[in-house]
Amino acid sequence: MSDNEKKHLEIDSLGEFGLIDKLTKEATLKNPSSLLGVGDDAAEIELSPKESMLVSSDMLVEGVHFNLSYVPLKSLGFKAVSVNVSDIFAMNGKPEQITVSLGVSSKFPVEALEELYKGIHAACSFYNVDLVGGDTVSSSSGLILSISVVGRVAKKKITYRKGAKENDLVVVTGDVGSSYLGLQILEREKGVFLENPDIQPKLEGYDDLIKKQIQPIARQDVIDMFDELDLVPSAMIDISDGLASEVLHIAKSSDCSVSLYSDKLPITEKLIVTAEELNLDPYMCAMNGGEDYELLFTVSQKDYDKIKNHPSFSVIGFVTDKSQDNLLIDKNNSAVRISAQGWKHF
Amino acid sequence: MSDNEKKHLEIDSLGEFGLIDKLTKEATLKNPSSLLGVGDDAAEIELSPKESMLVSSDMLVEGVHFNLSYVPLKSLGFKAVSVNVSDIFAMNGKPEQITVSLGVSSKFPVEALEELYKGIHAACSFYNVDLVGGDTVSSSSGLILSISVVGRVAKKKITYRKGAKENDLVVVTGDVGSSYLGLQILEREKGVFLENPDIQPKLEGYDDLIKKQIQPIARQDVIDMFDELDLVPSAMIDISDGLASEVLHIAKSSDCSVSLYSDKLPITEKLIVTAEELNLDPYMCAMNGGEDYELLFTVSQKDYDKIKNHPSFSVIGFVTDKSQDNLLIDKNNSAVRISAQGWKHF
Repeated sequence: MSDNEKKHLEIDSLGEFGLIDKLTKEATLKNPSSLLGVGDDAAEIELSPKESMLVSSDMLVEGVHFNLSYVPLKSLGFKAVSVNVSDIFAMNGKPEQITVSLGVSSKFPVEALEELYKGIHAACSFYNVDLVGGDTVSSSSGLILSISVVGRVAKKKITYRKGAKENDLVVVTGDVGSSYLGLQILEREKGVFLENPDIQPKLEGYDDLIKKQIQPIARQDVIDMFDELDLVPSAMIDISDGLASEVLHIAKSSDCSVSLYSDKLPITEKLIVTAEELNLDPYMCAMNGGEDYELLFTVSQKDYDKIKNHPSFSVIGFVTDKSQDNLLIDKNNSAVRISAQGWKHF
Repeated sequence: MSDNEKKHLEIDSLGEFGLIDKLTKEATLKNPSSLLGVGDDAAEIELSPKESMLVSSDMLVEGVHFNLSYVPLKSLGFKAVSVNVSDIFAMNGKPEQITVSLGVSSKFPVEALEELYKGIHAACSFYNVDLVGGDTVSSSSGLILSISVVGRVAKKKITYRKGAKENDLVVVTGDVGSSYLGLQILEREKGVFLENPDIQPKLEGYDDLIKKQIQPIARQDVIDMFDELDLVPSAMIDISDGLASEVLHIAKSSDCSVSLYSDKLPITEKLIVTAEELNLDPYMCAMNGGEDYELLFTVSQKDYDKIKNHPSFSVIGFVTDKSQDNLLIDKNNSAVRISAQGWKHF
């Protein structure tokens, strides 16, 4: 192994979260208005004694986060906004403004950028956020989208990753794993196409999976449901890197552990059938497939009545003392330790 | 010309500002908290009846905005923050938080990223801003830095690009053109080095020019001076794309024109000597060289006493009725129309 290869390995071995920890460990907060910095879905900035502002940024890079050979530009624009506002929902807040910075190579015709912005404007309209600024620069390689979102939340409602307490229930919205399987279908058909461009891609019947991958909808509706139910979760995070990874974030931030039941995971019949077709384990897809953009949260048991039998919520486990392992328990009561695979971009 | 080339030309022919206008024309503001969107140095968001929040985003791309063969990573980190906070100063505000999103290829050793972040942390400390979030992703090509900055400003002090009135004085801080010449020196020495790696680069004597290019300091001090002088400019912008380009922005936004005097432009003796050495016109460097990160502002004539003979300020012209051309007048009283060349990234 050359010295050079050794150096390359370092980023890989740290992983995204290790790298962020290393780079931001010096980032102390000095302004009194900076209430919360790196380490949650969004930063928290003081607005008034009763209200905070939330700020979050995400970057999407062509060839890493999206592949223009099968993602329509309009969907990409919509998704880029969804990914960002999802971070504000994950703090129980409401997004209000975004800035969009775009790096684009000259291979892009203006019409293509207009398609991208149609998606961005459609998402702004859908989530009721305003596009208020950004930057447009030349990129020597592919397309880069960097979005920042600003939102607001009442302090009594703000929900962090920390805050889960022993015996709290672990709840997830919607279903998990579909987005990952949608991506697998797109990759399969792309492979077939590359081998033989005359064969039409077989995407019929996989619409729900593909839609969840290409144009996921961030759960704004869930934040409204919390208001209607008069419910404030004890901890929350959005599922971008996969359920397992996010459960571990909540456990680490809340200084606790979590036990999940595999037969409680909200997976669709389509997911099971398609996973089998692709020789994948449906539970692996549900636990480690990313980009669901569902919300994972914990609630006190006293709030159980508010969420039981709710069509949008599945109780999938409970919070345990940190002396326990983080466990996934199957229907035969045998348990495996939860480990995060998530997305490895490095 | 192929169809493909025709398409390429479209972005070029629109230019950065034309492209932004085209893509954001649908961006209407619907949230009552969105006071000002695209079109100034920063967006304005309502905080209280007396105070606004400012938000701005900038993206820097390797090979377009910086060249790692002669920019130390620590300086790059510092500069990336300076470029962003400068947009808040240009609205007469104070920056408080930044988010940093980083796209990085695996060719980067962790130590190199730590150098970059040393510069980011040093700038945060210098400008008293807190690093509160961001994203770290893999980039298939070079380094991409996308920073968003959040700041605050009292509503009675906020200064837009619009607001310049006929007969107002046009004022610039510091000197202009040095950063551009610093870049020319670095490019020259890089060319020499590529031809013959044994020749040491000749950078001595050009320190001030190179420093202004590699690590410009955004004019936080000027915002403090305005407070001390009890002065609120009628319009302001920071000089990123070149004095000519910024003057035209103020004129267009304020629905007026501007006349500048070439012999009033603050150019250093070093700039004149170096421009001659490189066969460049020093006035062209001053007018069209970008990345000065000085502030360009207009003030009412009644405020002239506050700024006259101030070592940081040069009165370089005055505001005229929009029926006039935007003019650069030389010492023989002959005038040329000001046109923006600025940075052409597309």
